[in-house]
Amino acid sequence: MSYAAFEAEVAKVNDILCAVNVLVWDSRTMMPPAAAEARGKQLGTLVAVAREIATGDSMRKSLDAARMELAGMPGEHLRRRALDDAASAIATLGRIPARLVQESAERRTEGQAIWIKARAENDFAAFVPVLERTVALQREIGEHIGYADHPYDAACGTFEPDISWAQLKHLYADLKGAIGPLLQAALQARPARVDVLERTYPIEKQKAFSKAVAARMGYDFERGRLDDTVHPFEISFTRTDARITGRFRENWLPGGLFAVWHEAGHGIYEQGVAPEFTRSVFTTDLLNLYAVGGTSFGMHESQSRLWENRVGRSRRFWEQNFGALQAEFPGQLADVSVAEFWRAVNAPRPSLIRVEADELTYDLHIILRSEIEAGLMDGTLRVADLPAIWADKVRGYLGLDVPTNTLGVLQDAHWSAGMIGSFPTYTMGNIMSSQLFKAATKVPEIERGLEAGDYVPLRTWLGDKVHRHGRSLTPAEIMNAATGKVLGTDDYIDDLRRKVAELHA
Amino acid sequence: MSYAAFEAEVAKVNDILCAVNVLVWDSRTMMPPAAAEARGKQLGTLVAVAREIATGDSMRKSLDAARMELAGMPGEHLRRRALDDAASAIATLGRIPARLVQESAERRTEGQAIWIKARAENDFAAFVPVLERTVALQREIGEHIGYADHPYDAACGTFEPDISWAQLKHLYADLKGAIGPLLQAALQARPARVDVLERTYPIEKQKAFSKAVAARMGYDFERGRLDDTVHPFEISFTRTDARITGRFRENWLPGGLFAVWHEAGHGIYEQGVAPEFTRSVFTTDLLNLYAVGGTSFGMHESQSRLWENRVGRSRRFWEQNFGALQAEFPGQLADVSVAEFWRAVNAPRPSLIRVEADELTYDLHIILRSEIEAGLMDGTLRVADLPAIWADKVRGYLGLDVPTNTLGVLQDAHWSAGMIGSFPTYTMGNIMSSQLFKAATKVPEIERGLEAGDYVPLRTWLGDKVHRHGRSLTPAEIMNAATGKVLGTDDYIDDLRRKVAELHA
Repeated sequence: MSYAAFEAEVAKVNDILCAVNVLVWDSRTMMPPAAAEARGKQLGTLVAVAREIATGDSMRKSLDAARMELAGMPGEHLRRRALDDAASAIATLGRIPARLVQESAERRTEGQAIWIKARAENDFAAFVPVLERTVALQREIGEHIGYADHPYDAACGTFEPDISWAQLKHLYADLKGAIGPLLQAALQARPARVDVLERTYPIEKQKAFSKAVAARMGYDFERGRLDDTVHPFEISFTRTDARITGRFRENWLPGGLFAVWHEAGHGIYEQGVAPEFTRSVFTTDLLNLYAVGGTSFGMHESQSRLWENRVGRSRRFWEQNFGALQAEFPGQLADVSVAEFWRAVNAPRPSLIRVEADELTYDLHIILRSEIEAGLMDGTLRVADLPAIWADKVRGYLGLDVPTNTLGVLQDAHWSAGMIGSFPTYTMGNIMSSQLFKAATKVPEIERGLEAGDYVPLRTWLGDKVHRHGRSLTPAEIMNAATGKVLGTDDYIDDLRRKVAELHA
Repeated sequence: MSYAAFEAEVAKVNDILCAVNVLVWDSRTMMPPAAAEARGKQLGTLVAVAREIATGDSMRKSLDAARMELAGMPGEHLRRRALDDAASAIATLGRIPARLVQESAERRTEGQAIWIKARAENDFAAFVPVLERTVALQREIGEHIGYADHPYDAACGTFEPDISWAQLKHLYADLKGAIGPLLQAALQARPARVDVLERTYPIEKQKAFSKAVAARMGYDFERGRLDDTVHPFEISFTRTDARITGRFRENWLPGGLFAVWHEAGHGIYEQGVAPEFTRSVFTTDLLNLYAVGGTSFGMHESQSRLWENRVGRSRRFWEQNFGALQAEFPGQLADVSVAEFWRAVNAPRPSLIRVEADELTYDLHIILRSEIEAGLMDGTLRVADLPAIWADKVRGYLGLDVPTNTLGVLQDAHWSAGMIGSFPTYTMGNIMSSQLFKAATKVPEIERGLEAGDYVPLRTWLGDKVHRHGRSLTPAEIMNAATGKVLGTDDYIDDLRRKVAELHA
C-alpha cells in the first residue's frame, strides 16, 4: 500500500506537469499573443502546485513508508531506484524557495512574448530586463542547489546530471582543436550548389515529404502531430501524445526538412518509453518539474541529432530518398544530381544562426553561448554588454560580422524561457549521437537496413538501448551499456572528419 | 492582507480550471485519439486539485479572515459579494460527499463509452443501467444541495441560479401555447428554397465569410481563434483567450455559418468581462468547478442565440450581408434572391434531432427533455419507460414518429456525461435573448446601427449591461437592470410571431 501511495503522489505530479506541457505547447503554436500574461499565471500556479505536492507531507510520508516496505524485499531494483531518484530530486527541490520556482514559471510566457517582440524589432534593450532577471533568478537558484566548483555547474547539472563547467571546457577544447582545421579544409573543397536549396519549394509539399520520412524513421503520427511554430520544439504529454513542431520557409528547403527529422528524433524517444513508466518517476523530471521520458537533455538531443545528421545527412540516405524528393519538386530539382544535393545539404557555411548551422560549425555556436552563460553566472559578464561580446565571439569562431541583434544575441528562445545551462546539452547530444550510432552500426542488420532505407532495425536498437528505459537509467549508464565505453569525443570527431573527407572526394 | 489571501486562493483555483479548459479544448480540436486515456487522468487530477484548494483550510481561513476585515468597511459591495458567493458555493460543494463527486467523475467516461455504443447500435437497454445510476446519483447529490420544492430544482440550480421547476413549467406553458399555432401557421406558408443551401460550398470560403461576420459582430480574433471540431463549442481561459470552434459541411451551408455566430456570441461574452475580474470569484464557477465569466448557462446562451438568431437570422442582416456571401459563392447563389435566402435559413422544419432544430421548434425539444428529467428526479417516470414516453411526446409536440431510439432518447450526450438539469438553460437563453434584444433596440443608435450593418452599438450595449459584470450579478439582476422587468416570455413569443408573419408576407 505504501509504495502504491507513493506512486499515486508521483502520478498526480506527472498529470499536472503534463498539463503544463499542454499549456506550453499551446502557447507556442496556437495561443493568441494577447493571452500571454494570463497563461504565465496559469503556468506559475500549476508548477507551484506540482512543487507543493512533490515536496509535501503526503509525498514525504509515502516515500518513507515505501522505503520501509521495500527494505526486506528482494528483486525490487526498479522500485528502489524510483524511491532514491525521487528522494534525491525532492531534497534538492526542497532547498529552492517556492517563490523562485513560481517566478521562473510565471516569467516564462511573459518573457517569451517580450523576446518575440524584441527580436522582431531588433531591440535588445527591451530584452535586457528580462535576461537580467533570469540571470539573477538562476544564480539564486544555483546557490540553493549547490555546486562543487563554478556557479554554472548548478545550472548545467539540472539539465545533464554530473556535468561540470570544468569537464565541458575539456570537451570544448577537444572540439575546437578538431573543428578549426576541419572547417578550413572543408571551405577549400569545391563549392556546393547551395543555391538550388533556395529555389521556391511550396511549404505544403515540404511538409508532406518531411512527414512521410519522419513516419518511416519511426515517429508515430497516431500518437503525435506536427504544427507550425516560430522556434521548432518537441514536447510530450505521456508516450501517447508526443508532439513535434516545425518552421518551413519557401526559399530554404533544408531548414524545414531537417528540423522535422530532428524533432521527430525527440518524439520517437518519448513515444518509445516503456508504457509501464507512464505517470511515474521515470517519466517525470522532479527536479526541473517537467514531464519528460528522456533521461537527460543531452540524451534527448543525441536522438534528434542522430536522425537529423547521422541518418538524414548521410550520403546513403539521399541515395535512397532523393528520388521521392524530386517527385515532389520535379521543376525545382530536375537539374540537380543526388550527389550535388547531398553536398549542398552538408556544405559547411559559417552562419549567424545556430539553428541553421551546418554540422561542422554547430558546436561553435554552442561553445560561444556556453562561455557567455558561464560568464553571466559567475558575474564576469554583464547582460548589457552581450551584443558586443556576441559580435567578438562570432568573429573569432565563425569569422562573421553580426549585423543586428536579431541575427545575434536575440536569436534563441532559451533565455527568454528562463533556461540557462541547457546549451551545452546540444553538444553533449552531438557527441553521444556519434558514439551510439557507431555502436549501432556494428550490428549487421542495422547496417543492412540503413543501406536499404529500412530504419526499423536502427530504431528498434535505440528503443531497446535508450528509449524504453525512460529516466530509469542515467545517461552514463545508457552510454556504457549501449557502447561499452564512457562518453568521449572520438567517434564524433571521426564522423566530422569523415564527412569533410567525403566532401573533398 | 486577508482579502488578498482569499483572492490568491481563488486565483489559484481559476488558474487550474483555466488549464482544465485548455486541456478540454485541446482534446476536442487537436489531440490524437490515442491520448484519450492519459488526458482523462490529467483532467481528473486537475479538477480534484482545484476542489481540494476550493474546499481546503487555506480557503476557509482566508474567507473567514476577509469577512472580519471587511466587516467595518463601507463601500465594499463587490468584495462582500465575492465573499458571499464564494462562501455559498464552497458550502454547497462541501455538503456533497467526496464519494459522490468521485463516482460521478468516474462514471462519466464509462457512461459516455456505453452511450456511444448504445446509440450506434440503437440499444436502449444497454444504456438503462447507466442512466438509472446517473439519476440515482443526481438525486442523492440534490438532497445534499437542498431544494425548496422539487428535486429537479437542485439539478437545474447548479446551472441556472434561482430557477425552479414550478417557474419553468409556467414559462413552458406560455411557450407551448404560442408555438403550437405558430408552427401550424408557418408550415402553411409557401415552401422555402431550402435545397439551395445544399449546393456545394467549399469549406474554406464558408470559414472566411463566417469569420469576417463574427469579427464585425465583435468577436476579437486577437483574443481567440476558430478551430474545427465535431460538436462546436466555445471555451475560455480568461478574457484574453476565448476560443470558438466550428463544424463545416460542404453541402449544408447554414450549419457552419450560424454555429460560428452562435459560438462567437459566447466568445464575445467571455471577452467582454471586466479585466479586473480576471482570476476572481467573478470568473470562476466554484460550484461546477469551471472557469467561466458568464453568470449562468442561460445568460451565456442568451448571447449566443442573440447573435445567431436575433441578428443573424433577421431579414435586415441578410439584406446587408447577402451581397458579400454571393461574392464568395457566385456560382452557387447566382439564381437566389436575398428574400429567398432569408426564407431558406428561417424555414421551420419539425425534426427528430434537437441540434438541427429551427428556431420555432427548438424549445419543444427542450420542453420534452425537461419534463422527462423532472419525472426522473421525482420518481414519477422510470428510465425503462423512456422510449415510449419519448415517442409520445415527440408525436404530441412535433407531430413526428420516432423510428429508432438512436434518433430519439439516445441522441444527446448530456445524460451519459452525468448532466441532468442543463437542458432548460437553452430555452432560458432563448427567452432572455429576445427580452434583451427588445430593450437594446429601443435605443435609436442601436436600431440605426442594425439598419446599417454596424453592430458596434448593440455589442457596446450588451457589453455594458451584461458582459462586463461577469458573475458579479445574477441573471435576474442583469435582466432587471437591462430590461426594466423580470424575465418573461412576451418578447420572445413576439419575435417568433413576427418571424412567422414575415415568412407569410
